[in-house]
Amino acid sequence: MLPPQLSRRDLLTMIGALAGSEAMYQAMTTLGFAQESPYKGPIKLDGDPKGASVLVLGGGLAGMVAAYELSKVGYKVQVLEYREKAGGRCWSLRGGDNYTELGGFEQECKFDEGLYINPGPWRIPYHHHAVLDYCKRLGVKLEAFVQVNHNAYLHSVKAFEGKPQRYRHVSADFNGHVAELLSKVTKQGGLDQAVSTEDREKLLEALQSWGALDENYAYVAGTHSSERRGFDIEPGGGQMPLAKPSQPIGLSDIVQSGLWSSLSTGSLYDFQTTMLQPVGGMDMIARAFEREVGSLTKYNVKVTEIDQDDESVTIRYEDARKGGEAQTATADWCICTVPFSVLSQIKTKVSTKTKAAIDNLPYGAAIKVGLQFKRRFWEEDEHIYGGITYTDLPNTLISYPSTDYHSPGKGVLLGAFSLEAWAYEFTSLPPEERIQKALEYGAQIHPQYKDEFDNGVAVGWHRVPWTLGCYGEWTEEKRKEHYHAASSIDGRIAMAGEHISYMPAWMEGAILSSLDAIGRLHQRVVSG
Amino acid sequence: MLPPQLSRRDLLTMIGALAGSEAMYQAMTTLGFAQESPYKGPIKLDGDPKGASVLVLGGGLAGMVAAYELSKVGYKVQVLEYREKAGGRCWSLRGGDNYTELGGFEQECKFDEGLYINPGPWRIPYHHHAVLDYCKRLGVKLEAFVQVNHNAYLHSVKAFEGKPQRYRHVSADFNGHVAELLSKVTKQGGLDQAVSTEDREKLLEALQSWGALDENYAYVAGTHSSERRGFDIEPGGGQMPLAKPSQPIGLSDIVQSGLWSSLSTGSLYDFQTTMLQPVGGMDMIARAFEREVGSLTKYNVKVTEIDQDDESVTIRYEDARKGGEAQTATADWCICTVPFSVLSQIKTKVSTKTKAAIDNLPYGAAIKVGLQFKRRFWEEDEHIYGGITYTDLPNTLISYPSTDYHSPGKGVLLGAFSLEAWAYEFTSLPPEERIQKALEYGAQIHPQYKDEFDNGVAVGWHRVPWTLGCYGEWTEEKRKEHYHAASSIDGRIAMAGEHISYMPAWMEGAILSSLDAIGRLHQRVVSG
Repeated sequence: MLPPQLSRRDLLTMIGALAGSEAMYQAMTTLGFAQESPYKGPIKLDGDPKGASVLVLGGGLAGMVAAYELSKVGYKVQVLEYREKAGGRCWSLRGGDNYTELGGFEQECKFDEGLYINPGPWRIPYHHHAVLDYCKRLGVKLEAFVQVNHNAYLHSVKAFEGKPQRYRHVSADFNGHVAELLSKVTKQGGLDQAVSTEDREKLLEALQSWGALDENYAYVAGTHSSERRGFDIEPGGGQMPLAKPSQPIGLSDIVQSGLWSSLSTGSLYDFQTTMLQPVGGMDMIARAFEREVGSLTKYNVKVTEIDQDDESVTIRYEDARKGGEAQTATADWCICTVPFSVLSQIKTKVSTKTKAAIDNLPYGAAIKVGLQFKRRFWEEDEHIYGGITYTDLPNTLISYPSTDYHSPGKGVLLGAFSLEAWAYEFTSLPPEERIQKALEYGAQIHPQYKDEFDNGVAVGWHRVPWTLGCYGEWTEEKRKEHYHAASSIDGRIAMAGEHISYMPAWMEGAILSSLDAIGRLHQRVVSG
Repeated sequence: MLPPQLSRRDLLTMIGALAGSEAMYQAMTTLGFAQESPYKGPIKLDGDPKGASVLVLGGGLAGMVAAYELSKVGYKVQVLEYREKAGGRCWSLRGGDNYTELGGFEQECKFDEGLYINPGPWRIPYHHHAVLDYCKRLGVKLEAFVQVNHNAYLHSVKAFEGKPQRYRHVSADFNGHVAELLSKVTKQGGLDQAVSTEDREKLLEALQSWGALDENYAYVAGTHSSERRGFDIEPGGGQMPLAKPSQPIGLSDIVQSGLWSSLSTGSLYDFQTTMLQPVGGMDMIARAFEREVGSLTKYNVKVTEIDQDDESVTIRYEDARKGGEAQTATADWCICTVPFSVLSQIKTKVSTKTKAAIDNLPYGAAIKVGLQFKRRFWEEDEHIYGGITYTDLPNTLISYPSTDYHSPGKGVLLGAFSLEAWAYEFTSLPPEERIQKALEYGAQIHPQYKDEFDNGVAVGWHRVPWTLGCYGEWTEEKRKEHYHAASSIDGRIAMAGEHISYMPAWMEGAILSSLDAIGRLHQRVVSG
């Protein structure tokens, strides 16, 4: 055991300092910290920046993290932000919000008070340590985000005559059939080459338990299977009717349905329990950062040119609302978090290599549609509390709110979250028609849509003026060619944002990229 | 489609009324309500009770539901409750609460403000429609209860040298190995008899997707498996170190570990997502009922005799704190929710058959230990937000709070929840030593226990004076022999409670049994 006065973390720090990172990694394994996160806790920027100044372009999470950390250690920081508020893609739409997209479509969100959608990021994996640590330090309250709901649906227009199936039915039956098939083979000697006798016995035991097989290792209607998939008539009290087991779906129907393709969602490292969300909307994170760095931020700034020489960086910009007179800002250094989709349209003085990176990163398209309904029929009629229904219709999913269960008023669903081709298809329509499309698709799963729809809002990310796309979409080839240049400090300019990371589209990627950029920039400043 | 003015529920009610329950069940299937809950929404007690009076024995959920519903339709109701407050097993322990168990051990709970444990029920399945509907009607706020946490542990003293394993490692590796084995057999023709050619192709596709197999249908270290089990070095931002996949545990180690026995928890119908809990403690449900029926309740009542004749029921009782003079209460009818473990010790005038039922129902033993720690180290050090760690040590589990994530103060874990033999073992010790035992076991999983422990509280249900056990433990044989008598109205007395249900130990069982009992009682009253 460790001496009680020394925490495991203390010990690791000590080992790291005394014996280097390899020894520390060994020790982490021994102590059960085998997994190494790139986030090592609050960044330490030792050494005096000697009054150096930094211009941060973009007041999204990457920009605000840079501003927050750099200003804390003595940098003179100014943030230039295109919009009238900070946050970037960390954004929530609420009743009263207006949003004008590229092309001029204007929408007013008409949700009831307290209801919202997050057009951008909407859930936080438990291992996104940087996001979570900032939430903690800045006092952003968190609650569970329900990713998988066994009572939500899996739906395919090509399976079960288009009738949605409860997740629990597909899941229990898939597991059950797989367990039964493998049990049979095991007992018939089909694994004698691959698995030792001793392991075979245990494997059978495991398959029976995990797959809800009966005493003959069969997956059939009965108590075992119904205790996974649910009963046709559920157990009751007093002298209510006796419980009646339900009938599993056959193996062939399950495999041919293709619905199994959604079964692994909740097993994916990025979507496993426990996922989290800020109480009240994702932009609570943006607001928390804004409380810290809002005073350093100039809003409604449209950058028109980024210039640099050996001494400094000069930004030319105009008022994003009114245009007019060009203004300039100058600093020793620049953290540029402008998405490459936008930056490629701004005159920027960087090396040829960096410019090639900027010009060659395609951005993913995405659309989200939020739908307000007159009542929470998914809870009232269908007992769906949070979670996600998956469909092969172009809306791809319906996500139910993970909060305010049973609230008596209206409710908002995420009625579509579509990428690429489907996103373009949606966005080719005016917002009202996008909403109609989402309703049409959703009504195939929830017929209540027709009676209960109230109003909606639709955000197509490739039409969002300040991003012109949803996230940097690196291919393996593009990474090889451009990532090093994109992530290297070019003269006096360092890029940051989700696109300068190995976790594009995630807030964690944006924050880690920012921490890495300011860490390297600071090194240069203090050693310069 | 349905005519828009008619909800599916309206339609079902109409079909039920016009064509009977069989037709309604058919229609439910057609309309996607295939599953029938014994709870049909708020109970309708039509007809005039003509001033009939009812004594309700026990102010737990069953008793309060009876009092609430009967008083609403005109019955004169009085509840007699043993304790100084209502709720029964629906109970939360908070700082300042005192609790004296049978035998005299007294405990004062010393948790910080806002922290609690639920010694009794602690989670609500989404299909416990009666509980949830009462929560809705009575304004009890709900939040998600995290049952499965992929970052919590599975632990066996006999496996991996006693080192706890992350749930995600065991789960991903079990699925991966099962998928790989079955894929191999499928490709080698081992399923040619059992599965059609067409289905085999699809099955392979499904196994690859579900099991995270690589392009050769192998489950090996790499991106696919690490996207389930996590990476040794996680992806980062900027120029942070590159991600490094993790090494799966071998098939033999997984099956021999026995840890797979906990993998199905989250697939069980009773523990599937989305589970819920009241915000602030389970007794928020009790408090909500008490607001409705507290004025009908006489507290600190120890029933000493239950008598009845053709006309009425007479209860003899004394003050539960001071004893003293015997008092009586009389009514036309009685709903008795006293657990049989206690009722068997009270002189009760019922038929021989009912008496046999009362005397022959064993009660399950259970213990829970709540532990307050100086900080939420499970979140800070180990990134565990809610959920449950399972162990084969006698404490059986450690449950992490599903709420107030990141709260900076102290935190409370459920440090033991043990049944039967282990519960007796715990309870044979004085409370302080039970807590020490829970600490000793838990420290094998969380070494931080030693430094961070603050205080604790331990409730052994077989020593709780007002229940003398945790729940009615029906065997199949006992049910056959005694359940009908136990659930039949005996003269003027109807039994209710979780023990008069097919879902013992659940609040839903208690409520359904109460609704069934008062429904039948009311029938008798109005037709009498």
